[in-house]
Parts: sequence; structure tokens; C-alpha cells
Amino acid sequence: MIARLAIIGVGLIGGSLARALRHAGVVDKIIGCGRSVANLERALELGVIDCFTQDPARAVRDADMIFLAVPLGAMRDTFTAIKGRLRDEAVITDGGSVKGSVVADARAVFGQVPARLVPGHPIAGTEHSGVEASFPELYRDRRVILTPLSETDPDALDRVTRLWQHCGAQVTHMDLAHHDRILAATSHLPHMLAFGLVDALARRQESDELFRYAAGGFWDFTRIASSDPVMWRDICLANREPLGEMLQCFGDEMRTFATSIRCGDGDRLREIFQRAKTARDSYLDGLPPHQGH
Amino acid sequence: MIARLAIIGVGLIGGSLARALRHAGVVDKIIGCGRSVANLERALELGVIDCFTQDPARAVRDADMIFLAVPLGAMRDTFTAIKGRLRDEAVITDGGSVKGSVVADARAVFGQVPARLVPGHPIAGTEHSGVEASFPELYRDRRVILTPLSETDPDALDRVTRLWQHCGAQVTHMDLAHHDRILAATSHLPHMLAFGLVDALARRQESDELFRYAAGGFWDFTRIASSDPVMWRDICLANREPLGEMLQCFGDEMRTFATSIRCGDGDRLREIFQRAKTARDSYLDGLPPHQGH
Repeated sequence: MIARLAIIGVGLIGGSLARALRHAGVVDKIIGCGRSVANLERALELGVIDCFTQDPARAVRDADMIFLAVPLGAMRDTFTAIKGRLRDEAVITDGGSVKGSVVADARAVFGQVPARLVPGHPIAGTEHSGVEASFPELYRDRRVILTPLSETDPDALDRVTRLWQHCGAQVTHMDLAHHDRILAATSHLPHMLAFGLVDALARRQESDELFRYAAGGFWDFTRIASSDPVMWRDICLANREPLGEMLQCFGDEMRTFATSIRCGDGDRLREIFQRAKTARDSYLDGLPPHQGH
Repeated sequence: MIARLAIIGVGLIGGSLARALRHAGVVDKIIGCGRSVANLERALELGVIDCFTQDPARAVRDADMIFLAVPLGAMRDTFTAIKGRLRDEAVITDGGSVKGSVVADARAVFGQVPARLVPGHPIAGTEHSGVEASFPELYRDRRVILTPLSETDPDALDRVTRLWQHCGAQVTHMDLAHHDRILAATSHLPHMLAFGLVDALARRQESDELFRYAAGGFWDFTRIASSDPVMWRDICLANREPLGEMLQCFGDEMRTFATSIRCGDGDRLREIFQRAKTARDSYLDGLPPHQGH
């Protein structure tokens, strides 16, 4: 049971955690904190939070569990704002998409990574933002990756693991650098491709016509290009090296396409397309239906 | 009213046309033709066609309307098989995704492009194949692009226009080369990105783990990588030049990302992401709901 949960950043991610925990009946009081008063008032109206403040130090003062759901670029300032304001037994966790930068920010602010800080990342989301977009089932059957360090308090890790399990999530513990490489490949790179494709088309003279003739597949494919630009700027900068490596790897793949098309190497193209189709189809066959299509 | 419609290739595209026209009550008899007897028997069972043959020459013999829904790589052989077997008044149209190659194949086989051949392309589809995947609403409110030449018979063009309107489609006439450039940007390039992403990940040692941690967005994004490899090989080879140009344009965009990330140029990244999001959101706001999300 959580007596007082402080959520810094009551958007899609923070709001959905609040709703899920309330739904599970495992939280007593939820304090919201954020920069937009309008969003916090809406969160109050929707019953997602019980009260709010715009001051992170006040939000965390009496909390036994603190969830940071701010953009990665705001993580360091948030740590600074709550430093020295926490109860000894308070557990802190976060939802940042890159774990290396969160830990680096914590180390910079606290001198060392606090033992009761458990870096985490729920692998869930939609392209929408704000508390209006939040819903209690967001994390159901989704994976949540926690990346504890050697100095992480086992009791804190256990509490955060149970927090996510109460939301219906499957919790995994993983090495931090490994997490950041996996996410670069499966999330950050695809977002670059979607943003890049829409931008490349939008910058062309005939862009109106291009979008007019785009089929349903195009709009599905580019759905993630409607994600929040600030959040994605922060992710790119925070996961610079693994993402740079994936961009290079993908660039090589595209050069193979360009060469095969130019030389008319149909066998090579068919082989690549078949390998991709087989990989995707066989993986999805093994997934529960709600995660596939 | 179509007395006898011959459909060469009774898969998703050909089967859906048959179902839609039957539903509209504008066709009397439908003759199916294809290479897989099992698929043709299934089409007969499902009532999509009235009879079938595996010989294109027999299929078209008494037809007043002929729809070619074979992969682009099989178009030339199909023209060869039906040459000299057509009734004078028969109208031929096709569903190929690249129009330049279809017209080049027709010219090679017939000496000149037949006046009653109307090159066409329904901008619709799913990642599934075969008659089982076909359904009568596939073309409803979708665009169909016809690319008549100066030698195209206006009566034939009119008949094919009405054929698609009976399926609920919005029919546009367009210059052939223009069509091929538009489709390279909005369909062929996105397919390359999806195939390329899944393949790049599948070839990595840790591919199982990568796919295991991929979120819903990844599976939406790569849906089109489950498309038919032979069909896509043919499209790449048939639309070589416009697609090569788009791959180059996209490669430039990716190099901008890589440089911005390496240099920590957050303003540049945010600007690109914002432009992409605005373009996508504002275009979708103007679409009827069933084409958006």
C-alpha cells in the first residue's frame, strides 16, 4: 500500500500510472505536480489526482513513493528541486525512455545515485500527450524495465517492482546500458524514420498532393511522427551514442537497397523482404493477440 | 453493366474488385484466372467468381472487361498470353502499383499500347494476400488513379472510371510519370523503411530480445513489412528511378539527424520533429475519420 504518491508530470505516463494504481486500490492519496495549471486542474477534475502543487519540493515532502514522469531534459532540474526535501524512506522511480542520462543526472545532483532511486521505463505509450490521454489500462500486459544499480536498495527495487505489477505490467530487471541499446533499436530509431519520412515529404513542393494520395498504410506507418517533439529531442540527445550506431546500421541497409535497385538485383531484394516478413510474422504469431494485430 | 468480367489474379486486389462489383449488382458473370488452383477453388467456394480457368487466353475470350491483378513481374507474360485472343470491344485495365512498367510491357508485346487498355492503380490494400483476404469494402472512399495515354480510347476510360466508382472509389486521372513519382514517395519508400528496419533488427545477434521488448508502436510501424516479398521486389525494379531518388532524399534526411544528434543540436531536432508532427496532424484533421485514426 502506498500512503502518499507524488507524481511529477501528470501526463499520459504519469496520469495512467495514477489511474491504474487507484483502480487497483493500492494507493491512498495522490499528489500531482507539473508546470501547466490547466493540465493539473483537469487531472483533479478527472479524479486522477487528489491535490496538486507546482512546487516539486512540496509535492514530495510527505510522499513515500515518488514517480518522475517529466521529459528527460527536465530530469536534472527536478532532482535539484527535490534534493534534501525527501523523507528517508521515500522511494523514487521514473519513466524516462533513456536510463543512462537519468542516472547521470542523479549522480550530478546528489553526488551519488541515491540507494532508493530505482530507474525504470514502462514500454508503453501512445502518440498523444497530457492527462486527457491517460487511461488505467495503458500498462496492462506491457513490459516495464527496471535498471537497478549495484548500490540500489533491494527493498526499494521490490517496492517499485510491485508498483508496476499492480498496473498489470510484466516487470523485468536489466542492465542500464543494455536497456538503452535495445530501446535505440526498437523505439528511438523507428521514431527517427517516421519523423524523417513525414518531414522529407512535407518539405517537398508537391507535399499537399503527396499527402492526399497517401494510403492508410502511410498513416499507420507515420503514427509515431505525431509524438511530442520536445520529448523526442530529449531522447535523441540523451541516447546519443546507441542511437547514432543504429542510424549508421540502418543507413547501411538503405544503401544495400539503393544498390540492389540500381543494379536490378531482384534476388537480393526478395531475400531481404522475405527475411523481414518472416521475422515479423513469426514473432507476432507468438504474441498474445492484443499485442499483435 | 459488365456482361463478362475476367479477373487475372484473384487475390486481395482482384478478389475485392469482384466482390465489390457483385455487391453493386453491375456484373453478370465473373471468370477467375490464376496460377494456384487451390486459391481459385476457394474463390469459387466463396462466391467471388463464377468459374475459373488457368489459361488467360480462355479467360478473356468472351470478356467485355478484363482486370489484370498479377504482380508487375508477370504483366508482360500475361499480355503475351492474351494477345490476339481479345474481343474487339473488350476493355483492359490493371491494378499495378507502377504504371510506367505496365505501359512499357504492353508496348513491347502489342507493338503499341492498345487504345482500350486503361492503366490504373487503386490506392488500397492490406498486408495480407490471397482471395481469403479480399472484401467488398476495400475500395470504398479510397482513391483510384487512372493514367490514360493520348492514344487511350475515351469510351474505355469512361468505362473503367465507372467500374471503380461502382466500388465506392474516388477516381482521378493523372499523368503516368507523375503517378510513379508520387507512389515512390508515399508508398514504395515507406515499404523500404519498414522492410529495412525489421531486417536490420532481425540480422542482429540479439534479435529475439529486440523483438521481445518492442512496443505496440513498433508493430504498427512495421505492419507493411509483412507484405508480399515478390510483389515488392517487382515494384522496386519497376519503379527504379523515382524510388532511387526518394531513397537518396531520405538518406539526406537521416544524415541530418545523425549530424544533429552527434553535435547535440537540439534546436534542429526539435524543429524537424515539430514540422513533421504539424504536417501529419494538420493533414489528418482534414481527412474523413475512417482514413485517419
